[in-house]
Amino acid sequence: MAGTDSTKASLTGGSPAGAGGGAAPAVVLVEPQLGENIGMTARAMLNCGLAELRLVRPREDWPNDKAVAAASGADAVLDGTVLYETTAQAIADLETVYAATARPRDMTKRVMTARHAAGEMRELAVRGRRLGVLLGPEAMGLNNDDVALADAVVTIPLNPAFMSLNLAQAVFAIAYEWHQALAMSPGSEDPGAALAMPKETRPATKAELMMLFEHLEGELDACGFLHVTEKRPIMVRNLRNLLQRAQLTEQEVRTLRGAISGLSSGRKG
Amino acid sequence: MAGTDSTKASLTGGSPAGAGGGAAPAVVLVEPQLGENIGMTARAMLNCGLAELRLVRPREDWPNDKAVAAASGADAVLDGTVLYETTAQAIADLETVYAATARPRDMTKRVMTARHAAGEMRELAVRGRRLGVLLGPEAMGLNNDDVALADAVVTIPLNPAFMSLNLAQAVFAIAYEWHQALAMSPGSEDPGAALAMPKETRPATKAELMMLFEHLEGELDACGFLHVTEKRPIMVRNLRNLLQRAQLTEQEVRTLRGAISGLSSGRKG
Repeated sequence: MAGTDSTKASLTGGSPAGAGGGAAPAVVLVEPQLGENIGMTARAMLNCGLAELRLVRPREDWPNDKAVAAASGADAVLDGTVLYETTAQAIADLETVYAATARPRDMTKRVMTARHAAGEMRELAVRGRRLGVLLGPEAMGLNNDDVALADAVVTIPLNPAFMSLNLAQAVFAIAYEWHQALAMSPGSEDPGAALAMPKETRPATKAELMMLFEHLEGELDACGFLHVTEKRPIMVRNLRNLLQRAQLTEQEVRTLRGAISGLSSGRKG
Repeated sequence: MAGTDSTKASLTGGSPAGAGGGAAPAVVLVEPQLGENIGMTARAMLNCGLAELRLVRPREDWPNDKAVAAASGADAVLDGTVLYETTAQAIADLETVYAATARPRDMTKRVMTARHAAGEMRELAVRGRRLGVLLGPEAMGLNNDDVALADAVVTIPLNPAFMSLNLAQAVFAIAYEWHQALAMSPGSEDPGAALAMPKETRPATKAELMMLFEHLEGELDACGFLHVTEKRPIMVRNLRNLLQRAQLTEQEVRTLRGAISGLSSGRKG
């Protein structure tokens, strides 16, 4: 299925400046195991106009020859790939993040199909929102702590009796829906379900959210609320999930941090 | 992305008897070059409920170990695969055939996107029509004689500057659209988006939420955070708004109230 028109710029619809439909989401692979899968992911992305790939602790060395071979010419994606030590760092500058998972998670979080997510991402992207899609290692998928960092869970509806999708195919399904969402709704913007926001503010970045989480958890550690060691991880995850769901603005993050400081002030004073 | 439910029959929606949406199309690979690509094709098919694979003059021997390895468990598809000498023989029993091509052909023939074709195939399948999708060798695609045997041409809309789709990915795009066409078809629920929630809990009532608000505001009054009288109403409104947006569960309301009590404990103790 080769049909590239080399006269066209290869990052049409890609990041940072999209072709009318907003900047494409960054793809964040957490602990990918095989260079070949990273290369196939890059190829799948560029087929659909996505260009920004981020890797969190890939198992094999980077740059990686097998990734280059498997990318079949999607070198622009691999050349721009950035490595991160943690998922939090990899998404720090993003504003809305989707976690791709096959298994249901025991969390209160929005769950949507890839097609629904693509429509939502287009709406957000045309308004300038910086987007990302998180995917976990080939065999296991994302761990719950990484899912808790995302705003919503994306699932790819498949044959329930055989859902063994390879990593690049999962990326392809999401990227393909992103690409079709532009083709299907040229310029159409449904204001119906948008989140209204005062002009003076903007969505909080993931880095700002992470500082809020760490501030809150630090104070809750200090006051003894998180003292039961075996319960701490799930309490932290629940708090992060519920704050994540609120889609906080930068202003609201500051308000909450002020409130946390205020409430804690007695102990320190 | 492993999530197979082994209690479900693995050929849901597959051939010959589909699950409400008609029998799935057969996939016909003409002169596939690599066993690995045949295996990945089988996997992509079964992911989307397609089960019937036909091969016309595969280059490598058949059965093929590399195909089995790449199929990652889609053995049922490989076991049922039938070989043919010519494309005409491979489609002899079918009634409507779609040719997947990336390049435009100089032919008078209907051309449609994979999504459009999927809708049409579902309509035909529920009326009992026997369907097939033809794909050519990895590098070249279908030759014009084979395209001429088809009723319509199917294209997969991609980044015009990089359309290097591998064979299994092309099959996946078409099979995925077939699978989504059932999910989206009239009468079936649009899975769209929903808020997933652990079974043990339920959404908080407004009364529970109001008690949370009053608890938080009481403590924020006590610590002096809300002491600027003219700003108090807007601060309270902002806090209530952001907590409202989180769509808290009853469990989460209790967690937050515990956290507020914990943070405030120093002042009281």
